Amino acid sequence: MALTDLVAVRRNEEGIAAVVGILKQRFGERFQTNADVRAVHSHTTTYIPAQLPDGVAFPDSREEVEEIVRTCAAHRVPVIPFGIGSSLEGHVNAPGGGISIDTSRMNRILDVHADDLDCTVEAGVTREQLNSYLRDTGLFFPIDPGANATLGGMAATRASGTNAVRYLTMRENVLSLTAVMADGRSITTASRARKSSAGYDLTRLLVGSEGTLGVITSLTLKLQGIPQAISGGVCPFPSLEAACRAVIATIQMGIPVARIELVNALQMRAMINYSKLDYPESPCLFVEFHGSEAGVVEQAELFGEITAEYGGGPFLWTKVAEERAKLWKARHEAYWSSLTLRPGAKGLSTDVCVPISRLADCIAETEADIAEMGLIAPIVGHAGDGNFHVLVLLDPDVPAEIARTEEFVGRLNRRAISMEGTCTGEHGIGQGKMGFLRLEHGDGVDYMRMIKQALDPQDIMNPGKIIPLS
Amino acid sequence: MALTDLVAVRRNEEGIAAVVGILKQRFGERFQTNADVRAVHSHTTTYIPAQLPDGVAFPDSREEVEEIVRTCAAHRVPVIPFGIGSSLEGHVNAPGGGISIDTSRMNRILDVHADDLDCTVEAGVTREQLNSYLRDTGLFFPIDPGANATLGGMAATRASGTNAVRYLTMRENVLSLTAVMADGRSITTASRARKSSAGYDLTRLLVGSEGTLGVITSLTLKLQGIPQAISGGVCPFPSLEAACRAVIATIQMGIPVARIELVNALQMRAMINYSKLDYPESPCLFVEFHGSEAGVVEQAELFGEITAEYGGGPFLWTKVAEERAKLWKARHEAYWSSLTLRPGAKGLSTDVCVPISRLADCIAETEADIAEMGLIAPIVGHAGDGNFHVLVLLDPDVPAEIARTEEFVGRLNRRAISMEGTCTGEHGIGQGKMGFLRLEHGDGVDYMRMIKQALDPQDIMNPGKIIPLS
Repeated sequence: MALTDLVAVRRNEEGIAAVVGILKQRFGERFQTNADVRAVHSHTTTYIPAQLPDGVAFPDSREEVEEIVRTCAAHRVPVIPFGIGSSLEGHVNAPGGGISIDTSRMNRILDVHADDLDCTVEAGVTREQLNSYLRDTGLFFPIDPGANATLGGMAATRASGTNAVRYLTMRENVLSLTAVMADGRSITTASRARKSSAGYDLTRLLVGSEGTLGVITSLTLKLQGIPQAISGGVCPFPSLEAACRAVIATIQMGIPVARIELVNALQMRAMINYSKLDYPESPCLFVEFHGSEAGVVEQAELFGEITAEYGGGPFLWTKVAEERAKLWKARHEAYWSSLTLRPGAKGLSTDVCVPISRLADCIAETEADIAEMGLIAPIVGHAGDGNFHVLVLLDPDVPAEIARTEEFVGRLNRRAISMEGTCTGEHGIGQGKMGFLRLEHGDGVDYMRMIKQALDPQDIMNPGKIIPLS
Repeated sequence: MALTDLVAVRRNEEGIAAVVGILKQRFGERFQTNADVRAVHSHTTTYIPAQLPDGVAFPDSREEVEEIVRTCAAHRVPVIPFGIGSSLEGHVNAPGGGISIDTSRMNRILDVHADDLDCTVEAGVTREQLNSYLRDTGLFFPIDPGANATLGGMAATRASGTNAVRYLTMRENVLSLTAVMADGRSITTASRARKSSAGYDLTRLLVGSEGTLGVITSLTLKLQGIPQAISGGVCPFPSLEAACRAVIATIQMGIPVARIELVNALQMRAMINYSKLDYPESPCLFVEFHGSEAGVVEQAELFGEITAEYGGGPFLWTKVAEERAKLWKARHEAYWSSLTLRPGAKGLSTDVCVPISRLADCIAETEADIAEMGLIAPIVGHAGDGNFHVLVLLDPDVPAEIARTEEFVGRLNRRAISMEGTCTGEHGIGQGKMGFLRLEHGDGVDYMRMIKQALDPQDIMNPGKIIPLS
């Protein structure tokens, strides 16, 4: 289904002209309309065509965001929140034009409550910035998508990453957030209490809403104590199936694994060549354990026993930070190594997530599909969650390659949904996956649309995203 | 503020008569209108006056729930979902009359996916029923509110309990649910994938919505592996402050405590007398650790060191199940022992939750309030979450006692909210706490109301609950 069948966002030229005039006057240098600035504030990370906003505002505060949204609301002009632009499904495109709200100047860490293991940050703070700031407190924020994304953007797309198997996702790690709603008023969705039964869960409604219900301006996040000790290692397996069985056994035994990453044979080949490793070209699990000095040894030893039961090994592991870094180096370089599989190609990263009992099947069928379609597309997965990524290497200037990739992505998404999974574990719907929302949610889409219409009756908040027309 | 200022639910006599006639005809013995049945399907657990439904339906399936809701929707008659009636804030009252939907016949366990650590159950399955069923699988469902509540009811009120510090709450443990919405259509909110970024989080919107948005008919829940070993014990402290500091240190050190329950001095006195214990009458922490054989010893030893640092002790602990049961017996009998503090009185249980850095202050101020107001009201808390319960012992036939208790509850809720906490950590809003929702959520209440109006434009889903008129 073409995107044009899924959305109908029209440009309101008169309103846009009025808003651009007002914001120029009001924000001066902090409102940009030149083409370069607008281009980097549109979608840039895949082959989804860029759709530029008409202007980019750089507010300093929630009050300024309220002012921008009120101005846009008065003239029925779209508002598109922008973090660092690392999203992968066209979330920051402006199909009806409008104003991009760049949160990069809203990058203050407002409060760290060490006793409560939480902090409050402005939406433009990045995860690396936060963790650098926290270093002396003995605390850290565990959610780590690949990019050094902003925390506001991570909340908006319900991001996660390699640590989610232990520390869960943005859904569970945002205690509260402040957002400017479509009418220009802001709300704080919850208190700092760890749990509450007081009314509808507006926090979780906004987490994952991709800017379509409100502009997140600050967040209160759960923090974790930096573990006393960490162990980690790498284990090859004779097959994907064996690796996945080992993952299931590890989780069923209650081993609190912090990371358990699956890398398929093609990705291993790339990593072996690129990072000069002495591993076999077979599926591998990269694991990490967090705990006490004794605990991380016990966990690693137990994991070693499990892997052996499923024919895996040798499981090489260590508690020494430098050696761990060496073992994990290849995993961290996975993206760059992948690109060497087809020099000059661009990587299109897509993700799905299935119950872990179906992970081996889903990856195996996907590998067969890749072979059949003649694609080059390595796979890495957050195996503990049943979530995996396929990086399709393509030449975006060749329409036939894009068509073939779209066909592949469609089959992948339908496969994941048919296995009781989801069309996206952590990337979000944006524009790219709108065509699969109805297949996954059925009539649930209608209730999503009722909520959208109730909270944003003019459809100015990041229009043309998430919810398809039918 | 009186409840009548907060809600305006009028009886639709004509519609009710029509629906009662239709449902009698359709469901026969599975639709009851006698006064006794209606009375037990109204609020029975506190001094909030009972408001009886006009009839109680006992559907066998989701399809039958759809039929009942469609019938009620056609005649604008309220629908009030009912689990076992253990909720504490008037959730199951029928201020405008209408039909109680009793889910007790919908008590089938539909699926257990051991490899995925999840199960799907009908809404009327109770937590004890589920855990009995799971016993042979090596898995368990950790959420344990005091009562043997239904899982549908627990989801509807966003329940938790003693294990939440480690296993979190219903919010995080419901993977997906099926609910019949106000128009009689049902939706399944998510797949069985552990995580998803696909669209608005309808699961979390329905969890905690107390039947005001839909009738939950089945749920897919996360399960946990039964731990290899458990250790547990009891530690007295010289003061509340010292006990709370020990809780904070335990959590900051990353000890994965499974339960950490705070009992105040008055509650300890009741427990000592009732359960014939040899403990001092001072605040105590009851703790439990889950993990490997070595892990639970290490955790208990570390906890012992922490308690000593804060002047606590002796910390008596054990890995032996029978001895643990003996140590914890008093905690499990807390409710019954409380009642002996004022024989013949009824217990009114209320709850708030604050950031743990404020827990000691909040409890100390509450104890001072109790003394000043001349109440008898012991306190137990899920200290790791900052959540605590006060059980006010009162004679519900004496209006002055009710008034004094309401005044106390009001002060307690305002205190918790002023300390960046919530007016309810796990009981819900129902009717009893509607007066505090605006104080806690400010303009957020307006957006909750927009959602309610969009999804239930006739206001037939458990009307007069959660969202106040202004």
